[in-house]
Amino acid sequence: MNVTVWNENRHEQKNEKVREIYPEGIHGEIAQVLDKEGFNVRTATLEEDEHGLTDEVLNSTDVLLWWGHLAHDEVSDDVVEKVKQRVLDGMGLIVLHSGHFSKIFKSLMGTTCDLKWREADEKERMWVVDPSHPIVEGIGEYIELEKEEMYGEHFDIPKPDELVLISWFEGGEVFRSGCTYRRGQGKIFYFRPGHETYPTYHHKEIQRVLVNGVKWANPIHHPKPEYGNAKPIETISAKNL
Amino acid sequence: MNVTVWNENRHEQKNEKVREIYPEGIHGEIAQVLDKEGFNVRTATLEEDEHGLTDEVLNSTDVLLWWGHLAHDEVSDDVVEKVKQRVLDGMGLIVLHSGHFSKIFKSLMGTTCDLKWREADEKERMWVVDPSHPIVEGIGEYIELEKEEMYGEHFDIPKPDELVLISWFEGGEVFRSGCTYRRGQGKIFYFRPGHETYPTYHHKEIQRVLVNGVKWANPIHHPKPEYGNAKPIETISAKNL
Amino acid sequence: MNVTVWNENRHEQKNEKVREIYPEGIHGEIAQVLDKEGFNVRTATLEEDEHGLTDEVLNSTDVLLWWGHLAHDEVSDDVVEKVKQRVLDGMGLIVLHSGHFSKIFKSLMGTTCDLKWREADEKERMWVVDPSHPIVEGIGEYIELEKEEMYGEHFDIPKPDELVLISWFEGGEVFRSGCTYRRGQGKIFYFRPGHETYPTYHHKEIQRVLVNGVKWANPIHHPKPEYGNAKPIETISAKNL
Amino acid sequence: MNVTVWNENRHEQKNEKVREIYPEGIHGEIAQVLDKEGFNVRTATLEEDEHGLTDEVLNSTDVLLWWGHLAHDEVSDDVVEKVKQRVLDGMGLIVLHSGHFSKIFKSLMGTTCDLKWREADEKERMWVVDPSHPIVEGIGEYIELEKEEMYGEHFDIPKPDELVLISWFEGGEVFRSGCTYRRGQGKIFYFRPGHETYPTYHHKEIQRVLVNGVKWANPIHHPKPEYGNAKPIETISAKNL
Repeated sequence: MNVTVWNENRHEQKNEKVREIYPEGIHGEIAQVLDKEGFNVRTATLEEDEHGLTDEVLNSTDVLLWWGHLAHDEVSDDVVEKVKQRVLDGMGLIVLHSGHFSKIFKSLMGTTCDLKWREADEKERMWVVDPSHPIVEGIGEYIELEKEEMYGEHFDIPKPDELVLISWFEGGEVFRSGCTYRRGQGKIFYFRPGHETYPTYHHKEIQRVLVNGVKWANPIHHPKPEYGNAKPIETISAKNL
Repeated sequence: MNVTVWNENRHEQKNEKVREIYPEGIHGEIAQVLDKEGFNVRTATLEEDEHGLTDEVLNSTDVLLWWGHLAHDEVSDDVVEKVKQRVLDGMGLIVLHSGHFSKIFKSLMGTTCDLKWREADEKERMWVVDPSHPIVEGIGEYIELEKEEMYGEHFDIPKPDELVLISWFEGGEVFRSGCTYRRGQGKIFYFRPGHETYPTYHHKEIQRVLVNGVKWANPIHHPKPEYGNAKPIETISAKNL
Repeated sequence: MNVTVWNENRHEQKNEKVREIYPEGIHGEIAQVLDKEGFNVRTATLEEDEHGLTDEVLNSTDVLLWWGHLAHDEVSDDVVEKVKQRVLDGMGLIVLHSGHFSKIFKSLMGTTCDLKWREADEKERMWVVDPSHPIVEGIGEYIELEKEEMYGEHFDIPKPDELVLISWFEGGEVFRSGCTYRRGQGKIFYFRPGHETYPTYHHKEIQRVLVNGVKWANPIHHPKPEYGNAKPIETISAKNL
Repeated sequence: MNVTVWNENRHEQKNEKVREIYPEGIHGEIAQVLDKEGFNVRTATLEEDEHGLTDEVLNSTDVLLWWGHLAHDEVSDDVVEKVKQRVLDGMGLIVLHSGHFSKIFKSLMGTTCDLKWREADEKERMWVVDPSHPIVEGIGEYIELEKEEMYGEHFDIPKPDELVLISWFEGGEVFRSGCTYRRGQGKIFYFRPGHETYPTYHHKEIQRVLVNGVKWANPIHHPKPEYGNAKPIETISAKNL
């Protein structure tokens, strides 16, 4: 299984605090976590040619993870279109945290994907509301993060196909933090936590959800449906009228 | 309740057969049906300035119906963006037949909206699969259309929030023909039948579904949610650390 | 529109505090709220013959509201079966608060409907997560209740057809507080708040949700589907082999 | 992975035609198919003590398949209750064909599960409507069965969590033939075809769906949620008032 971790990798360049938490970048940390599970992992970042998402990389990627924040607008529309086509053709996509505002997520959702937010070092508790879902295998009743950025409802997304996690925030808000969607032949998982100034991706249960998410989003082998003009399979009586 | 019926109105110009069936255009026929129900109805067509969908028209429209086929690409991106914003702000949208490939529908769905199709004068039978839904109020177990264009699965749409009607076609295909979605504060209803060379919109039960759909899609009175930076409602302890 | 408000009416007999808050009983209070909206309202309680839910009452009820807690087991299985049949035949059902453990709700859900709970005079804030839904018409971004009983996840229910409200609780939990389901031809709305020792049903926005819920759950006019052995509508070729 | 195939095994005793098609019974055929895939497979039938579903068998079953028709009423309520509890605790359940009317399925659905039916040697074509779903891995656009019993809409089930397959029937009906549900911690898959007088379970693609379904329904490792009275995780201010 081939996994590509994409990161805009800007906070890491600008902010020493982020570098301290993630010396190899957020993408480096996540890649390491997935690598230990035996996935074949690559990373790609905004600054690379075609943002590191060449046709060759995309065509050989089973699941793509996406972290972006400061530079959503700098992602080329051509690359976004190619990523979208790959998702519709079956590639799994895991959108992380501030990726809610990425071009690729908004384009696949069809809504603004807007939300409330606040940086206040506050506690987040993500409750499992679907204890049958493979994405929360091995997780307890909730995941607690001592300090995280708050994201609050209303989260302007389509109704999730599956709602797996709901967050409680110390400041009084709630949020649909683990949501799955299917678009075309591809599976999409939005996973809320992961603000760059907190060690969220070092958290064991967060790592477990990422690993589970990648497994869940793995494409199945299914022929691409045929679209367009189709001959009748059965006899149509009116044709002979 | 203010309803606007939009039609590209091209087949009516080009094809005498279509003109015979719909002397006032497809938009004219649908407008008449809705007018009888007491809605305040306007029409708008591609050839008008801003396709007849000026800010004033859009801002005073509660539910918009959309029929297009030949000229999807001629619809201005600006108008599409405005219509989309109005839907997200609450305007109902009813997408008819070949409108599955309209810019507005594809943009709200996030998928290709592709499908199989065939023009073969074949029989369609739309079965009600949700007999509790207001969109099928007054309809029997199924609606039968003696001759229609076939649309067949796979229909590349997101999973409908509600699946109300499934079509059987003489040639051997099935299709999810009545699908609802919510995007932002707006309700969307996709309704399959309505090929221009058949008198589908003269059919009493088809008319009933259109009327029901308009009522269902009527926006509710609800303040637009506030997005962006939000002050905590409760005290956050870590702030004082 | 005929509405019946059912209440076990036990706390009101036993607990002076409850009587002070609801001198006419919880059913009396809710009936008054609905009566003001112009519905034709009746009440029924556990102690009445057939719990007040005779065939005549049920057959002329469009929407039934259900509040129970102490005496779920005293509700006769026969009455539960009749109520269930009426729901499947189209009667709306609004299940309130501790009604989550009623026989009728568990039977329609197929799960235990279990949850966490706590009586600690704590704050509840119910966030609107579907701002397009008629059940929250006229409601702001959230409803705040200064003191309520806590219900916490995991709530063992089937995935709601529509999730409208999510609660935040001061003690650290979240809860899916406004959930809709369709069963047969009937619409069901589960609405969490309403502990007997708090004046929750005097709260204007709670009342508004009840009124909206009743309107939403109103049955549509649709013939009961025909079940059982069915003659073919089309010719089956193999019959002649 | 431990799989148990349950069959009432009555048609096989009564009808020579069924015995010819399934000399080892329907359960024997399905067990063989699953055994080849490397699952640890047992069978159980109505006539055995506790219908072969002792506590020991149930507690060591990961996924249970269920075929019943003539003798739904002979299945003991105690056994049904135990099977239900096991599903809610995580055991997968695959309900086959006429199992739609089994006590266990109706109890988990909360509806009548009624439908139209006809035995007329007619053609069925099951279309894949969710080409991303693991249950249809390796399947083409549709599965065609030359002769099957017809099941037609309206099928009185709750809205499926996932709708994977829709059937077209020669006689003019459609049917939601592949439906998934989650109840408690358990996953449920209803799969329509499998009338006893046709060799449906010998069909390679039907076998593939069964195998896929078993894999999909495999329980995850997740602690049983805690229900009942819960201490606050956070400080509740009102407690000190």
